[in-house]
Amino acid sequence: MDQHATTGGEEIADSTDCGHFFEGTEKLLEIWFARNNGGGNPGDLRSISREEWVTLLKLVHCEIISSKQDADMIAYLLSESSLFVSKRRIILKTCGRTTLLAALTPLLSLVKQKCGMQVMDIFYSRKNYMRPELQHELHQSFDDEVKVLDKLFDNGAAYALGRLNRDTWYLYTIETSGINEPDQTLELLMQDLDSTRMSAFTKAVCKDGLEATKKSGIDQIIPGAIIDDFLFEPCGYSMNAILPNGAYFTIHITPEPEFSYVSFETNVEMSTYEELILRVLDIFQPKKFLMTLFANPGSSANDFYSDIHNIGQIKGFSRHDHQLCVLKSYNLTCSVYKRSQQIEAPPI
Amino acid sequence: MDQHATTGGEEIADSTDCGHFFEGTEKLLEIWFARNNGGGNPGDLRSISREEWVTLLKLVHCEIISSKQDADMIAYLLSESSLFVSKRRIILKTCGRTTLLAALTPLLSLVKQKCGMQVMDIFYSRKNYMRPELQHELHQSFDDEVKVLDKLFDNGAAYALGRLNRDTWYLYTIETSGINEPDQTLELLMQDLDSTRMSAFTKAVCKDGLEATKKSGIDQIIPGAIIDDFLFEPCGYSMNAILPNGAYFTIHITPEPEFSYVSFETNVEMSTYEELILRVLDIFQPKKFLMTLFANPGSSANDFYSDIHNIGQIKGFSRHDHQLCVLKSYNLTCSVYKRSQQIEAPPI
Repeated sequence: MDQHATTGGEEIADSTDCGHFFEGTEKLLEIWFARNNGGGNPGDLRSISREEWVTLLKLVHCEIISSKQDADMIAYLLSESSLFVSKRRIILKTCGRTTLLAALTPLLSLVKQKCGMQVMDIFYSRKNYMRPELQHELHQSFDDEVKVLDKLFDNGAAYALGRLNRDTWYLYTIETSGINEPDQTLELLMQDLDSTRMSAFTKAVCKDGLEATKKSGIDQIIPGAIIDDFLFEPCGYSMNAILPNGAYFTIHITPEPEFSYVSFETNVEMSTYEELILRVLDIFQPKKFLMTLFANPGSSANDFYSDIHNIGQIKGFSRHDHQLCVLKSYNLTCSVYKRSQQIEAPPI
Repeated sequence: MDQHATTGGEEIADSTDCGHFFEGTEKLLEIWFARNNGGGNPGDLRSISREEWVTLLKLVHCEIISSKQDADMIAYLLSESSLFVSKRRIILKTCGRTTLLAALTPLLSLVKQKCGMQVMDIFYSRKNYMRPELQHELHQSFDDEVKVLDKLFDNGAAYALGRLNRDTWYLYTIETSGINEPDQTLELLMQDLDSTRMSAFTKAVCKDGLEATKKSGIDQIIPGAIIDDFLFEPCGYSMNAILPNGAYFTIHITPEPEFSYVSFETNVEMSTYEELILRVLDIFQPKKFLMTLFANPGSSANDFYSDIHNIGQIKGFSRHDHQLCVLKSYNLTCSVYKRSQQIEAPPI
């Protein structure tokens, strides 16, 4: 997500090149909670009020701009990305120069006090920043982020997948026996995107989020979702989509050609993601993307890692890095693909 | 390998704890060369003389203590670990506070000038040090090592497998189409070893390398090898073993209980390494070990990674981390195992 004027985010004009820059790369925190033993607390994270989130998100330096909900979750659209709150799971994704980890300890306290719940599993991840030197010191290096997290958890496991000297994807999790329901998360972190496709995500071409969603084809990725979309001034786009049974997808777009970035994330359960991946790539036409997939043994996506292992090519893209990481309760793959042939992008 | 008095290595008594310490963790460099186009040079790395190696190894801060050879390779035993020289491949493994990378540029020049050969593939790897702060500044952090290597190679790929905040294994390689003969390397990096088993590698118990090799059972790991072994004063052990058709194995032992470390490395081709692994573990009885296996598509070991993936347990050990990394021309696995049940080690 990229926003420049309408909300609380800061536009960065730094002294080194005086150019405009926005870090689309998100910090992503997913936490699963369990009820503390005993006590009559209902144990539902959705009992945390919007006002309490507003207060918490001040620590992160972002704001709520809208929200949608169904019977399973509340999806907040933020000035920098998204927040999804289900009964037992919180997903907080923030881009730009936000300070996500600053909210972690207060969040855990709030959940303990208000919901009588404690951490069962946690995943903090991000790609390497384009410009790490512009981040708050809390987030400039993954080593420093790990130090913060290691103070809170004594069973933490920190990983660097991809390449350390090129496209890196960092993950911090904890060793737990994990949740016992099927769970999976697919992320596509796309860079160097097609400028024609990106033009839909500017006020020069579309008047609002709804128009950008339709014009780009985002509304056709997974039809039937409850969509909350927003087009920033003068450019940048964010959307949350709520699907039945606690599923979601979310897209955040920084369209400027100098630092274009699009993220797609979903927890929708599929036994193969190949078609979905092709649909997303077709809309955004990146020159490269990093793909991660988490799946636990109960998930029908858990066999897809062996398919991914064999997919050295994805229509027009060749794989430059691929890793499988076996976690205590998830199989995780991380793959980097680069465009191998020039595809003429038809006009939107 | 651990040596304290007999050779050129330095015993470290640092100011922080005044205690004796030796870093068994090796730096490992494997380079495959190809002949430059044209020229009538025979293109054989074995034409590099012992004197030339002595000069080069001065830059690394280690010395040759003996050597053995057969028709395929020359195996040098070093004051800090080993050097194997075949027609097209050099393997240099050095422990302690050696400065392996200081020799890289001079080595490449020597090979170019004397053998008319250039780098075809390169692998620089090591586990995280027990005490990185005692290393030469060239080697204190992998980031710094990568900077050195990135200056020499424009297609370098740097990886960190294992966990960043616990047992980490670093690798730097380059993107090449690779060698077209079957190739594989298995490494077992063992720590917290059984002190009874370790006593064989002290002068208090054995008079020389030969006795330690037999008493420990090392001579039975892969029978029929040409063995070059050395027992250091007062403790520490190194051995090279030459097998037919360019195969080798090498073992280096730091027996002191405060920082015990044993490495086993081999390129012997097997379709399954399970028995070999169990034999090695049975001799040394570590409390934990990190295992890496490289195999290229031509190798009969190339399917073993899928077996490894399924081996969550190795007799008495449970797996704490496991990753598969797909390189341009190799499949690589890295796994960390820890003893899950106490095994009474019978006396040696």
